[in-house]
Amino acid sequence: METLANNSRETLIATAKQYLKNSYSPYSNYPVGAAVLAEDGLVYGGANIENSAHPSGLCAERVAINKAISEGNRKILAIAVVTRNAGSPCGACRQVMREFASLDMPVILTSVDGSVEEEFTLGELLPRSFGPDDLDRE
Amino acid sequence: METLANNSRETLIATAKQYLKNSYSPYSNYPVGAAVLAEDGLVYGGANIENSAHPSGLCAERVAINKAISEGNRKILAIAVVTRNAGSPCGACRQVMREFASLDMPVILTSVDGSVEEEFTLGELLPRSFGPDDLDRE
Amino acid sequence: METLANNSRETLIATAKQYLKNSYSPYSNYPVGAAVLAEDGLVYGGANIENSAHPSGLCAERVAINKAISEGNRKILAIAVVTRNAGSPCGACRQVMREFASLDMPVILTSVDGSVEEEFTLGELLPRSFGPDDLDRE
Amino acid sequence: METLANNSRETLIATAKQYLKNSYSPYSNYPVGAAVLAEDGLVYGGANIENSAHPSGLCAERVAINKAISEGNRKILAIAVVTRNAGSPCGACRQVMREFASLDMPVILTSVDGSVEEEFTLGELLPRSFGPDDLDRE
Repeated sequence: METLANNSRETLIATAKQYLKNSYSPYSNYPVGAAVLAEDGLVYGGANIENSAHPSGLCAERVAINKAISEGNRKILAIAVVTRNAGSPCGACRQVMREFASLDMPVILTSVDGSVEEEFTLGELLPRSFGPDDLDRE
Repeated sequence: METLANNSRETLIATAKQYLKNSYSPYSNYPVGAAVLAEDGLVYGGANIENSAHPSGLCAERVAINKAISEGNRKILAIAVVTRNAGSPCGACRQVMREFASLDMPVILTSVDGSVEEEFTLGELLPRSFGPDDLDRE
Repeated sequence: METLANNSRETLIATAKQYLKNSYSPYSNYPVGAAVLAEDGLVYGGANIENSAHPSGLCAERVAINKAISEGNRKILAIAVVTRNAGSPCGACRQVMREFASLDMPVILTSVDGSVEEEFTLGELLPRSFGPDDLDRE
Repeated sequence: METLANNSRETLIATAKQYLKNSYSPYSNYPVGAAVLAEDGLVYGGANIENSAHPSGLCAERVAINKAISEGNRKILAIAVVTRNAGSPCGACRQVMREFASLDMPVILTSVDGSVEEEFTLGELLPRSFGPDDLDRE
């Protein structure tokens, strides 16, 4: 696992908590905040943005990652997620991480009240993954 | 249609063009840039961010809208999209606009070379729409 | 608009109503049924299938269309949707119709109690659409 | 892991291979077939159905699962996936499995030429998952 400096970890968690407040989640009532450390050294935050047509909503993790990539980054180095129960990223968010992260990227899961803080690598959360290389093997 | 000041229009188009350069579209080879004017008066840009698992990618319009909403906005006032052929937002992007915009929101479609510039309202692009009110009618 | 024989229309609506009963919609409490007439002359039904990770769910219309296409069809000829309030297909479902239907395909919207029955063409519901041709214009 | 009778396994793989032929994948050129054994004892097949607006496409696994659920099933018991290189389900497909399967459900990955056949449990492919229980913990 890549080592993540303590100040980076604290910044990520604090940013995720801050963005959770901007969550638009009237349908699930499950607000989520996320924050990504990108290769440019900046931290990008996101919140879940739901939709009355439920499949058209987006999770906080993907909002944060898409922000980072659309600013020109092509690599993310760490991600933190905050929910009331330290919920884990859904499979689709793990897939989006897979496109832009190495398998040893740290994924930090925390609860809003700070009582739970866990850390996994992306490879632990998405083993035997599908990725860009699969499409090249004609 | 809401009137959009000329300088706002120019800023939106210029921002969309700028973000198009950050498009991650190795699978479609169809780069898209978008820019949203939000209720806070700021312009948020986005680019399409694709994925080897194609359904997990996201269009430029939704990247830009999700940025605006995750910063605390709950209303978007105008959007511009730039592609090589003045391509239109897909249906899913129109649905996400529907959640956060009035039906008279201007949607500006332009080509990178500036040869095409069209304007529609959201209501023109997504008539007889599904929206938050549908879920309330028990 | 293509003419749709009355018996086809009745079959589509009846099939959509039947599939609505199989809806898995514990998160929205908004059950939807849909039915598609495909080029092979068969009718394919679908219901909305939601997910605790909301963006990973799927609307009834897309479930029905994906069934038809995965059985070998490449064209759909008509679609009916049934909900409690004659709700309309979301933008993403309109986009999936766009890939496999002509713009004059009938889209029939009905309420479960039969009090509302409206009909539109796909072109009316998704004007100035994005489609396969857009990707070819290099 | 649940034991899967050999004839069920063979039926699943054969069905997935059959449906792969119906794949609509002009954008990725990566055809996928899938087959699901549902609680009603029937096998449901699916293929990937792509879209010019790439995020509006759907993977073969989800097409097959949505078929099974929309026919009234609420549980799937096994799934097989066939691609040219024994590619794995994307994260979003794993998430949809999670809604309707136990963590010991077998997921069989095979190559079209039969040279590769691997088996995992869903829990191995989606550890520390997000699921319906997460939304209940207010």
